[in-house]
Amino acid sequence: MSEGPAGETVDAFHRGRFHVLQPKGGGHRSGMDAMILAALVDAQGAVSVADLGAGAGAAGLAVASRLPAAHVLLVERSPLMADYARRTLALAENAAFADRVRVLEADVTLNGRARVAAGLEDEVHDHVILNPPFNDAADRRTPDGLKAEAHAMSGDLFERWLKTAGAILKPGGQLSLIARPPSIAEIIAACGRRFGGLEITPLHPRPGENATRILVTAIKGSRARLALRAPIVMHGEDGHRFTAFADDLNNGRASYARR
Amino acid sequence: MSEGPAGETVDAFHRGRFHVLQPKGGGHRSGMDAMILAALVDAQGAVSVADLGAGAGAAGLAVASRLPAAHVLLVERSPLMADYARRTLALAENAAFADRVRVLEADVTLNGRARVAAGLEDEVHDHVILNPPFNDAADRRTPDGLKAEAHAMSGDLFERWLKTAGAILKPGGQLSLIARPPSIAEIIAACGRRFGGLEITPLHPRPGENATRILVTAIKGSRARLALRAPIVMHGEDGHRFTAFADDLNNGRASYARR
Repeated sequence: MSEGPAGETVDAFHRGRFHVLQPKGGGHRSGMDAMILAALVDAQGAVSVADLGAGAGAAGLAVASRLPAAHVLLVERSPLMADYARRTLALAENAAFADRVRVLEADVTLNGRARVAAGLEDEVHDHVILNPPFNDAADRRTPDGLKAEAHAMSGDLFERWLKTAGAILKPGGQLSLIARPPSIAEIIAACGRRFGGLEITPLHPRPGENATRILVTAIKGSRARLALRAPIVMHGEDGHRFTAFADDLNNGRASYARR
Repeated sequence: MSEGPAGETVDAFHRGRFHVLQPKGGGHRSGMDAMILAALVDAQGAVSVADLGAGAGAAGLAVASRLPAAHVLLVERSPLMADYARRTLALAENAAFADRVRVLEADVTLNGRARVAAGLEDEVHDHVILNPPFNDAADRRTPDGLKAEAHAMSGDLFERWLKTAGAILKPGGQLSLIARPPSIAEIIAACGRRFGGLEITPLHPRPGENATRILVTAIKGSRARLALRAPIVMHGEDGHRFTAFADDLNNGRASYARR
């Protein structure tokens, strides 16, 4: 991480294979959640991937960096964060894939023609990824306005975001998201009849500890039943070092395939 | 297991510390699910425990066998299965705790005064356990009528059963259930505002395999947030032998405490 001119940082991901320009301290800073989310896109060839609520673009860029033919659309409502995403793409360090990534400043919760007019077209993407603002009361009690906005997920946010995800995915396309365990029922409800074949994977910091995140993938139009997969444990018994698999996911050396 | 006179079996549980008389082959035979469910009651002293949909009584008897001062109410709608439960209690092998167990032939889904009149009184139990008929389309396609009835869990069964569980539990009392992963959202919804502090534990047959069951405990009136606990893996890497903890739970040597 290096500090930019105006309280900004340039953070290296995937062991330096790409960089993200982010506001220092403020905002919803991207880190491991974004990297694990990106690992859920297990694809080959010229797939089209939309990152909803992309922030400065960490998750979407992690997909573009790992998959050499993927095209990525970063969708971000906040003009400030969309500007960070555009400036992130302009970094020399990201030149290898910047031409495969676009930034769309748009509100994910738009509906119908307004959504299409904003650039969120029907059935054009193979994958949609989302790392939604966590709708946690504790998170919302923050003095940081920008962070508050990023975290201000109202009660029906999953419903609204997954409606858009369902609209812009091709039939058979894959939704992937990372969230907190208390949101599990709301996420399943929002999948509704749009998505099926849900696979939920709990993420535990250490063996024996409660899960701190859930990974959810689902297929548009599928009628397959929900599966609860074996957990991913991030750290080994010693509590410090990442497990080899977690380290591979975090550094873009592995994807996490559906069953 | 020994065969009774009319296609019945007497099955030993907890390494012979209690026995259950069950119809052979037919019905919803009890086994490890019931033992694991019973292990969720982590209590001491003269607690009152209701087993809803008790069948021949395996889960409730496992509680009575492990906890030397617990009083258990076996609630079963089917006259046939309630009769098995009564005859189970009359077995000489169960004499050590039979005086702490009662059988109530009643429909769990009754409401209000009809429920109370049937013997399901308000706020009298410290624990309610339930091993509900699995509402799985594959299960319902069975030629076995009795099994079909036991498995015929309609779409709102969790709602109806948890309403009764919430009514008969004391404030602060604990609900415990075992179910299949696809029911997770329905269970959380049925907990609604009646129960909080949900703790969900996935049960995996072997490391790396999908969960086949979920254990759910919740506290009446709690507002604590849902937690997704570390999984319980039933078999070791060799795939055959039970893990020591699974064996302890199955044989009444351990309870599975809430956090």
